[in-house]
Amino acid sequence: MCVIASVDLGGTNIKAALFSVDGELLVKNSWPTEAEKGYQYVLENIGSIIQQLSAKGQVFLDDIKGVGIGVPALMSERGRHLVMAPNLRWSNKELIKDLQALLAKPVYAHNDANLAALGEWWQGSGKGMENILMVTIGTGIGSGLILEGKLYTGASGMGAEIGHMVVDLSETNSCSCGRRGCLETYTAAPAVVGEALRLMAEGERSNFLSTSGITAKDVYQAANSKDPLAEKVVNRAALYLGTALANVLNLLDLDAVIIGGGVSNAGDTLLNPLKEVIKEEVLFFDRRPTKIIRSLLGNDAGMYGAALWVLSEGGVELEGHL
Amino acid sequence: MCVIASVDLGGTNIKAALFSVDGELLVKNSWPTEAEKGYQYVLENIGSIIQQLSAKGQVFLDDIKGVGIGVPALMSERGRHLVMAPNLRWSNKELIKDLQALLAKPVYAHNDANLAALGEWWQGSGKGMENILMVTIGTGIGSGLILEGKLYTGASGMGAEIGHMVVDLSETNSCSCGRRGCLETYTAAPAVVGEALRLMAEGERSNFLSTSGITAKDVYQAANSKDPLAEKVVNRAALYLGTALANVLNLLDLDAVIIGGGVSNAGDTLLNPLKEVIKEEVLFFDRRPTKIIRSLLGNDAGMYGAALWVLSEGGVELEGHL
Repeated sequence: MCVIASVDLGGTNIKAALFSVDGELLVKNSWPTEAEKGYQYVLENIGSIIQQLSAKGQVFLDDIKGVGIGVPALMSERGRHLVMAPNLRWSNKELIKDLQALLAKPVYAHNDANLAALGEWWQGSGKGMENILMVTIGTGIGSGLILEGKLYTGASGMGAEIGHMVVDLSETNSCSCGRRGCLETYTAAPAVVGEALRLMAEGERSNFLSTSGITAKDVYQAANSKDPLAEKVVNRAALYLGTALANVLNLLDLDAVIIGGGVSNAGDTLLNPLKEVIKEEVLFFDRRPTKIIRSLLGNDAGMYGAALWVLSEGGVELEGHL
Repeated sequence: MCVIASVDLGGTNIKAALFSVDGELLVKNSWPTEAEKGYQYVLENIGSIIQQLSAKGQVFLDDIKGVGIGVPALMSERGRHLVMAPNLRWSNKELIKDLQALLAKPVYAHNDANLAALGEWWQGSGKGMENILMVTIGTGIGSGLILEGKLYTGASGMGAEIGHMVVDLSETNSCSCGRRGCLETYTAAPAVVGEALRLMAEGERSNFLSTSGITAKDVYQAANSKDPLAEKVVNRAALYLGTALANVLNLLDLDAVIIGGGVSNAGDTLLNPLKEVIKEEVLFFDRRPTKIIRSLLGNDAGMYGAALWVLSEGGVELEGHL
């Protein structure tokens, strides 16, 4: 038997699965990352997770012919070098080399949002399309690009980042990256909460939201119930996201933008105002095939993508095994 | 003998050339467009221009096996359909069909900036590179993308437009497209003149510029001579262009951005402040190979690109002839 192990490494949880070489998800599970215990601990944890999956999936460890891993990091050299992973507090790591030494298996890594895009293109909302952008919106904003049916990551492999696209040079608030006006500061989950709290502190009233302990989900639910304050907050998030996506669409003329990540659970509450902005801001939008749609694979997109990344990148190397 | 005719159709002038199938420019010339005389007149003018070139280049008209044409227009379907050409006042034209009927030769058309990018990639500043953006800055801002060694125009063929990228949502002045905050309204030649005039009208003093009849070239020359007002204007243009290009570079992680068009003659007076902005705004810029450089082919880039477009698109169709 031949299977692929897929790992989606997050700042909080590690999700992992086994896939058949035909792309069927066989077994999956989730574990805490415990990033605070450091790089070596997390790597060893991944080794243990793969052992647990092989037991759960009733396959021999030797049947796992390759491991794909998505990392919340800027990666260069087609995923071989990890430049920086703020959520894990890692920088300048030879992740593939280190994991291969530990697992004694071929390892293929890439930025998690790039692999999520690959997953949605393979078996999700982007199936059959040539050119898509996948945007994952949660604590941050990640993105991945498929162009002409292939993962596109650019000259040094660090491409496909829209979270720090500047759409408002007049902005005075700083982003975590040190710049101003980045998309993430308007549309990521903490930004939506922050704007709701700011409006309430200014005296605007909400029928649903309290001034402490609210989440982005609460804001979207309140907007769905026509709370005027929450609607204002969501429309602002949609204006900035829509403007950034329109900038991408005027440049790349895509078949689809796929919205994933926790915030995508807001569904039409986000997608409807977002589509309005995009229709206004993309030149001749009605002449284009572009769809604005939700992720189909949800939290599993990254694992699907990591499996395909092993199958596509590892072709030659794995040939003897598969 | 086998040659290719290349046409770069502009709002003011038509530039045209003959190329050998090896990509050598054999003969070229320029004629007024006279767009005000209408679509059919311009098409017949192109027919006459090709005849004049064949005489000048001492080749038989029958030796011209294909015609490539760059048009200042949004084109869809790989250049087959012309959606809109504001400078020519054309919209919804079947340009290729109409020109083929007139010339009785295979015709290949595309957006002029897309073909200029192709030209620079083939025989200009982008030679040997895989991923480039070419930006032509003049009365407007055009752009073309080469990704993984091929012209990229997207799902409907209308891609690679950065002139209307929104980088300042706080802007109140309108763009010609009806939106606000577009790059063109800050960095195209008329915007640079407009900003200089605005500052002078507000009472700021210039040692070089007068309040009437100045051009973008005058402003760049004054900036080169350290005129504080002109330097302020150029830095503003560079800030907006640099922000837009950084947005593209974070997304596409390119080998180079090539600056062409009339404004590129400003050279380092524009490129130096532009590079400063880009270094600040692109994540980990120093880890990337990205170069910010000037066009090498200048006004001929579009004609080179049109010739390559014929050779690459027309491969099968032309095979019997070449």
